[in-house]
Amino acid sequence: MQSLIRSLKMEATLRFFFFLSLLFIVSNAADFCVGDLNGPVSPAGYSCKTEAKVTVSDFVFYGLGVAGNTSNLIKAAVTPAFSAQFPGLNGLGISLARLDLAVGGVIPIHTHPSASEALVVLQGEICAGFISSANAVYFKSLKKGDTMVFPRGLLHFQFNSGGSTAIAIVSFSDPSPGLQITDFALFANNLPSALVEKVTFLDDAQVRKLKGVLGGTG
Amino acid sequence: MQSLIRSLKMEATLRFFFFLSLLFIVSNAADFCVGDLNGPVSPAGYSCKTEAKVTVSDFVFYGLGVAGNTSNLIKAAVTPAFSAQFPGLNGLGISLARLDLAVGGVIPIHTHPSASEALVVLQGEICAGFISSANAVYFKSLKKGDTMVFPRGLLHFQFNSGGSTAIAIVSFSDPSPGLQITDFALFANNLPSALVEKVTFLDDAQVRKLKGVLGGTG
Amino acid sequence: MQSLIRSLKMEATLRFFFFLSLLFIVSNAADFCVGDLNGPVSPAGYSCKTEAKVTVSDFVFYGLGVAGNTSNLIKAAVTPAFSAQFPGLNGLGISLARLDLAVGGVIPIHTHPSASEALVVLQGEICAGFISSANAVYFKSLKKGDTMVFPRGLLHFQFNSGGSTAIAIVSFSDPSPGLQITDFALFANNLPSALVEKVTFLDDAQVRKLKGVLGGTG
Amino acid sequence: MQSLIRSLKMEATLRFFFFLSLLFIVSNAADFCVGDLNGPVSPAGYSCKTEAKVTVSDFVFYGLGVAGNTSNLIKAAVTPAFSAQFPGLNGLGISLARLDLAVGGVIPIHTHPSASEALVVLQGEICAGFISSANAVYFKSLKKGDTMVFPRGLLHFQFNSGGSTAIAIVSFSDPSPGLQITDFALFANNLPSALVEKVTFLDDAQVRKLKGVLGGTG
Amino acid sequence: MQSLIRSLKMEATLRFFFFLSLLFIVSNAADFCVGDLNGPVSPAGYSCKTEAKVTVSDFVFYGLGVAGNTSNLIKAAVTPAFSAQFPGLNGLGISLARLDLAVGGVIPIHTHPSASEALVVLQGEICAGFISSANAVYFKSLKKGDTMVFPRGLLHFQFNSGGSTAIAIVSFSDPSPGLQITDFALFANNLPSALVEKVTFLDDAQVRKLKGVLGGTG
Amino acid sequence: MQSLIRSLKMEATLRFFFFLSLLFIVSNAADFCVGDLNGPVSPAGYSCKTEAKVTVSDFVFYGLGVAGNTSNLIKAAVTPAFSAQFPGLNGLGISLARLDLAVGGVIPIHTHPSASEALVVLQGEICAGFISSANAVYFKSLKKGDTMVFPRGLLHFQFNSGGSTAIAIVSFSDPSPGLQITDFALFANNLPSALVEKVTFLDDAQVRKLKGVLGGTG
Repeated sequence: MQSLIRSLKMEATLRFFFFLSLLFIVSNAADFCVGDLNGPVSPAGYSCKTEAKVTVSDFVFYGLGVAGNTSNLIKAAVTPAFSAQFPGLNGLGISLARLDLAVGGVIPIHTHPSASEALVVLQGEICAGFISSANAVYFKSLKKGDTMVFPRGLLHFQFNSGGSTAIAIVSFSDPSPGLQITDFALFANNLPSALVEKVTFLDDAQVRKLKGVLGGTG
Repeated sequence: MQSLIRSLKMEATLRFFFFLSLLFIVSNAADFCVGDLNGPVSPAGYSCKTEAKVTVSDFVFYGLGVAGNTSNLIKAAVTPAFSAQFPGLNGLGISLARLDLAVGGVIPIHTHPSASEALVVLQGEICAGFISSANAVYFKSLKKGDTMVFPRGLLHFQFNSGGSTAIAIVSFSDPSPGLQITDFALFANNLPSALVEKVTFLDDAQVRKLKGVLGGTG
Repeated sequence: MQSLIRSLKMEATLRFFFFLSLLFIVSNAADFCVGDLNGPVSPAGYSCKTEAKVTVSDFVFYGLGVAGNTSNLIKAAVTPAFSAQFPGLNGLGISLARLDLAVGGVIPIHTHPSASEALVVLQGEICAGFISSANAVYFKSLKKGDTMVFPRGLLHFQFNSGGSTAIAIVSFSDPSPGLQITDFALFANNLPSALVEKVTFLDDAQVRKLKGVLGGTG
Repeated sequence: MQSLIRSLKMEATLRFFFFLSLLFIVSNAADFCVGDLNGPVSPAGYSCKTEAKVTVSDFVFYGLGVAGNTSNLIKAAVTPAFSAQFPGLNGLGISLARLDLAVGGVIPIHTHPSASEALVVLQGEICAGFISSANAVYFKSLKKGDTMVFPRGLLHFQFNSGGSTAIAIVSFSDPSPGLQITDFALFANNLPSALVEKVTFLDDAQVRKLKGVLGGTG
Repeated sequence: MQSLIRSLKMEATLRFFFFLSLLFIVSNAADFCVGDLNGPVSPAGYSCKTEAKVTVSDFVFYGLGVAGNTSNLIKAAVTPAFSAQFPGLNGLGISLARLDLAVGGVIPIHTHPSASEALVVLQGEICAGFISSANAVYFKSLKKGDTMVFPRGLLHFQFNSGGSTAIAIVSFSDPSPGLQITDFALFANNLPSALVEKVTFLDDAQVRKLKGVLGGTG
Repeated sequence: MQSLIRSLKMEATLRFFFFLSLLFIVSNAADFCVGDLNGPVSPAGYSCKTEAKVTVSDFVFYGLGVAGNTSNLIKAAVTPAFSAQFPGLNGLGISLARLDLAVGGVIPIHTHPSASEALVVLQGEICAGFISSANAVYFKSLKKGDTMVFPRGLLHFQFNSGGSTAIAIVSFSDPSPGLQITDFALFANNLPSALVEKVTFLDDAQVRKLKGVLGGTG
């Protein structure tokens, strides 16, 4: 009797596998698209790694647990987990970063050209804010566990407003949000000083000073 | 006189072709993107076949007219016309499938991770339903010609609630909607039984029984 | 002992309900947005009916099972299940229609301004085709079960190419795909004849004849 | 001399304000759309609060700093910061939640119907995983600072795999991602047991047992 | 005979109108959504004006033919045709503006938070440029008829690089692209000087000077 | 003292460069995707040129300053700046074209399958209009500086309604909007005359006449 049941179950299983194989064809789907950093890139992101080569490691990122090096002018560090660093995010509409802010540290005013950002303070105290395109100013001092959202494309900033190291996790509404720090865009490349002055109304001395500090030329 | 008209018309035509050739350059457009299943894949879908190689056959699919094989455990079959089977759909925001449900047949509870679904009963009677993320239950017995919509990503099911074979055509809001049958996700792979039990609260005996039937291991 | 278990289970259930109530708040989600046809409309569609008033009937549509009336000039009928007729589709990226084509019936050349279309022949024989913006022609005679896709925004047509009534189900990649029949746009409104002639190169007599038949003025 | 400069500067400023007023009209823009929870809802989200009434508080959320109550059956809590709880996120393509997992705690297998998720472990050890629609299993034990991404719409789970309380911050690619816990969808509502059994292949005893625990009826 | 034809045609027309009325229901479509500036706003834009009240005037805008007033500090003017000024654009994915640049005029460095921009020089010579988030500088002097594109969200500028008034038409990939002029965001509101200095590294004297000129406080 | 400051600044700069190099990795972003016309194409557009090979020339287009050749049947010319001609637009949601209309010139009735259009008259007088899918007609005579918008996918036309050459700049909400001129779709290819007549109700003589003029066969 038991062996009959076993044989019936085997038959059922075989028939099931037949069905299953059909479903697997169905399911060869666009669930995800782990980025192949060496393949062609489209406006929608990186090409997809072959599904057969994808492992769980593609969906895990270890970098956000490591403190960034804040021994620099801004006493701060941004550790990105964008699709370029974490290809498992490619095409999934989300990415992350870690902010480390030593005492006095600041993430200078910047934008993410294609993403909104949400920040969660993990440690310390961070003053964060943004300016709307109607020129209204929104800023607030945030403590551990507090969250703030910065709407897509708007100028915003974060700085350590406490007496100890601050850490935050930020997430973005795009796997490759970009990061454009205004000071770097103006003073850390070869954009000619005269041109910078013309489009910012800053004084020549100020522009040259910051170009000197930030390594800009021209 | 006639020949004058003819020659004038010819000239006009020639001038027109000159203009036309310009327009053809304009029109080398993104009307469609028939999937090249061997090219690179992006988060937006398959690469496009060269337009010169596209024929009407790329836009026609014959599989939905053929009854699926329902000689299996679920007495049902899903015949997909997703972009993997019907590359003409690639990039067009739509796909289709045929459901065959023998008497007693059931499409077990499942989701399409990236698409809404609309079902039209072609034959027989089908009981279909879905559960919202607010846990509300919506189900109904549908007859020939009745239509039901299942919002994107939600658990839903269909089963034959009549006394004869039932057939339905379903369409999806995505060319590659995916299909995740909960039972298969839990019992037809190597997800360890202990883990299944932990995340479902199912009893060990139940999990092992279904793993046995569905070919799962672990 | 049994009563102890029962009381423990009751306690567990109570605790669970506490947790559940929290989750229900979480889940007051954007699963669907059944259209309130009397509320304000946004570029994304109709306003949503209050979730408490939504029933399974909002997700079911009965009109596609009813033959359209083909006693008209084109010997054809389009029965739409767009969000205006089937508000459960609102916001879900999909809609449907039924085509009835009597012998000799034709759905004149037309576009759907915002959607791709997929057609499945349910009965009879339908010749369907479209023209790309590179001016290439793609058409095919389709039998029962055959499927054809028409890329978004392109001119296409369907006509009965068999000797008996033909029926098709079509689906669209938008809950409100629009339908612009070229002949109606040109000849069934008050667009002045002179203007029609200027932008189509059609002869005056032809334009006036079709305006006469289709009820256009001007 | 000084007063001349002052008067010139005043004039310039006045002229500038004239220009500025023009720009303010320009800038009355769609930077953000803080949700008005009492206004009409569209498929794109809540209606926008009048910009004049928006303050920085609309962009800040305090709930993620507070431990969820894990005194329940699953020894876990989800604290959402979706647009319903944090209206500043409305329309911005992102949302957040906090997971608290006591020892032995588990977030049962679930999906978010419209969003991808990224999880960052803040404390303790969490085993997390997902199943693809091709039925492949991806799971991993994660430590503090480790990040895992769960592609949109797929079944996934998290449980405490360590010996102490675990905490994670998760973010989603949608301001209202939904949360559908499979067990709740099956056992915590009025979906009839017979129907649950039909679409899951679970045994009647198993279904009744879990309905009992989770408060389901039918 | 003629009267028979006439009566037949009348009958046909009547039947046609019957059919037409059906089609009009079909066509009550989402072709456009002229913004009702007094209705509720959603993340997708303004509410739609009732279609019955829409006239051709809703789709026409006269403001871009009028020279902007360049008698101001920047010797330049931006005349927007965004959905707030030109509600016919609402929901259509496009908007426009006119730039007037007197000799020496400049549109200071700015971003559009949610749109790409394409500029066409109509008169004079304009030097335009943008900086990528990889800090690369792209700028060029443009003559009449030349076109330049500025990718979404990136800092860019335009200034008159010729000896006569310059005019340009710009278009945007969003009906409400926003406009955030960096100088205004920093110096023309109540963002405290100390805070500006902290997040820009500008000197206090520089910040106070520009706050003075641009009317900022704090 | 001065040399101390200099050495300190140098050190700071060095530390800054260390930080900068980190940010450059972050910023290797999806700011733009200049089309590689020889690479694979996806539904989202052309593949991206390597960022290192991108120069400012990729973002500048000179063709719109050159008058189109109107010595043709329609006395008009369309000069496109779509992503195929101006690859810098690829992926940016916008494109442009120039219209030249000699006296009596006309852009025959047409659609752009995937884009809305906004037209600005630069010279002369243009009568422009569109027909909604509810068959309503919207047309207007436009003078220099006037702007009109044509909602996505709808039939529209433009013709010179003045006594001198007219010029317009048009922009589109898609980098590859397509252009489908109804007359060309019907009469300038191999779509059989009998089929054209069937789907348009045009007379055979009319169809053959226009096929003759426009070079169609069949």
